[in-house]
Amino acid sequence: MHVDTIRWEGDLDGAVRLIDQTLLPDDLVYLDIETVEVLRDAILRLAVRGAPAIGVAAAFGVVLGARTAVDGGPAAVLAAARTAADRLASARPTAVNLAWGVRRMVARAERDVSASRTGKALAESLLAEARSIWTEDRAVCDKLGEVGLALLRDGATVLTHCNAGALATAGRGTALAPIYLAVEQGMKVSVIADETRPLLQGGRLTAWELAQAGIDVTLITDNMAASVFSRRKVDLVLVGADRIARNGDVANKIGTYGVAILAKEHQVPFYVVAPISTFDPDTPDGASIPIEERASEEVTRASSGRAPIPDVRVYNPAFDVTPARLVTGIVTEVGLIERPDRAKVEDALRRAGRI
Amino acid sequence: MHVDTIRWEGDLDGAVRLIDQTLLPDDLVYLDIETVEVLRDAILRLAVRGAPAIGVAAAFGVVLGARTAVDGGPAAVLAAARTAADRLASARPTAVNLAWGVRRMVARAERDVSASRTGKALAESLLAEARSIWTEDRAVCDKLGEVGLALLRDGATVLTHCNAGALATAGRGTALAPIYLAVEQGMKVSVIADETRPLLQGGRLTAWELAQAGIDVTLITDNMAASVFSRRKVDLVLVGADRIARNGDVANKIGTYGVAILAKEHQVPFYVVAPISTFDPDTPDGASIPIEERASEEVTRASSGRAPIPDVRVYNPAFDVTPARLVTGIVTEVGLIERPDRAKVEDALRRAGRI
Repeated sequence: MHVDTIRWEGDLDGAVRLIDQTLLPDDLVYLDIETVEVLRDAILRLAVRGAPAIGVAAAFGVVLGARTAVDGGPAAVLAAARTAADRLASARPTAVNLAWGVRRMVARAERDVSASRTGKALAESLLAEARSIWTEDRAVCDKLGEVGLALLRDGATVLTHCNAGALATAGRGTALAPIYLAVEQGMKVSVIADETRPLLQGGRLTAWELAQAGIDVTLITDNMAASVFSRRKVDLVLVGADRIARNGDVANKIGTYGVAILAKEHQVPFYVVAPISTFDPDTPDGASIPIEERASEEVTRASSGRAPIPDVRVYNPAFDVTPARLVTGIVTEVGLIERPDRAKVEDALRRAGRI
Repeated sequence: MHVDTIRWEGDLDGAVRLIDQTLLPDDLVYLDIETVEVLRDAILRLAVRGAPAIGVAAAFGVVLGARTAVDGGPAAVLAAARTAADRLASARPTAVNLAWGVRRMVARAERDVSASRTGKALAESLLAEARSIWTEDRAVCDKLGEVGLALLRDGATVLTHCNAGALATAGRGTALAPIYLAVEQGMKVSVIADETRPLLQGGRLTAWELAQAGIDVTLITDNMAASVFSRRKVDLVLVGADRIARNGDVANKIGTYGVAILAKEHQVPFYVVAPISTFDPDTPDGASIPIEERASEEVTRASSGRAPIPDVRVYNPAFDVTPARLVTGIVTEVGLIERPDRAKVEDALRRAGRI
């Protein structure tokens, strides 16, 4: 029902096959990526994006690095895995899944290095680990769908921001997973998709993948959300997350915080849907989350035909932080965290074995 | 100091000269418009926009219609003025200045028709009336600047939405007028400009005209406003208006209502700057204001390279309504209406002779 965003193609000599999301919705092009640097570049230019998907991509990326060193034996493979992990983790700072994915890969390499008789054996075990991450991500998406389904009723209208769908994961998405499941079960669900400037993940990706799946979707510009809340019936907001702090503050695509305020003003429940891997126990609160600022051209490209206006500065943060007090609940694979706070987040992390 | 957005060029045989704002910021092109239909088209495609500017444009447009009938005598000129007024008034529904401008022109024609010895004499008197509207608009902008200046302090940061500057009027603008005056007087004022999707009046027009005037301006996408309110110091919001109802509800460019909610959440004062001609005594409240919906392509153009995504609907309201309860004050040429309500608006309208 949903698109195949990323997977490993072939055996250890294979490639990371992923959709080049910069070309959507015009062209559905799959890239076969065979080196760490090409993969890092794909993450940097957002050919692959979405916190869970870049976590999976980075895990595969560690394999791409590790396999170059198989002739040097297990120790060389471990070293190459660590180098790849560092390169990949530095690509983007906000989404914690990226760091989580490569850390898990390095931990596996460290655990298996002494038991591996050859470099190839260790690289194979890393490919198995990355494939597990991929498989688990898909299973987690399904579980998020099941947990989130309880929030939807037949005929519901959901407003979403950015893309937290199949294109943001290896599976059926985070925020969109409950919607896919509801529609599969015969419910009618309508989606209002914020276009999500500057890079239009809502207009290009969410609108596209929902339309592909035959789900009713209406596109609006970000600044129409307030009007939609006031003039139309919106039952709830579902968004993804790039990092969730220990106190329940949520970093997500720029504009999410504004949507949360508008939802509160109109008494519309605001839910975040995210795997446990998006939580960062080491980040105490939203103020501690590094916010990536991206190139000004991402903004000015739309408003200038030939060149940006001289002497106009641009502020282009890629994410914002929604404080826990504005979050009605966080849907995770270990259950719904209602009215999140530090104690409830820690409880969920404990149940998931993360702390 | 500011650009010349619109004026009448020459005598009765002249033309309406206006900047084609669809070409900004790349090209500064002046159009000389000589017929009602071309002018109506310029209003429809937003070559000229901004409530005060289209009020002035429509007044000149009535002259363009009236002068075609001078050979038929005063009665024919009156009839032609009425026909032009109807055509122009129907171009866009929300901004009340358009209707106000043409009504004032028709009223002048009705008053002068019997005293006019020739058709040409009546057309000349209509040109004089339109020129008065133009002159008054410029004087009103200056006055709005003076009244609004009291809201600014040296070093202030102002967030604005859409374009309510020189490009929206015949003078120095509405919301931007206090900023131009403050900077002239040696104060430092910084402006955060929302880009204002879908048509990017902030990114194309506000950023351009402020940069032209040497005023510090930072461009953001609309969905960054919440983050800016929370992470940076914003002293106040200044926006224009397309129609203000008798109870103080304000219709303005889509997204304004959202900005007002965000400002309230962050305890930032939210001011509307508008001439008395933007008030509509016949509109009791915001719910009675017709909201123009425009073509879906305005939205999808950004997110699709070649073609909109099939089966994706688009909702594209051009305006929204900010309830009076979210408005800290309305700056008018007859003074500041603090915490507007019906009684205070009626008091201002009485002082201005509008009711």
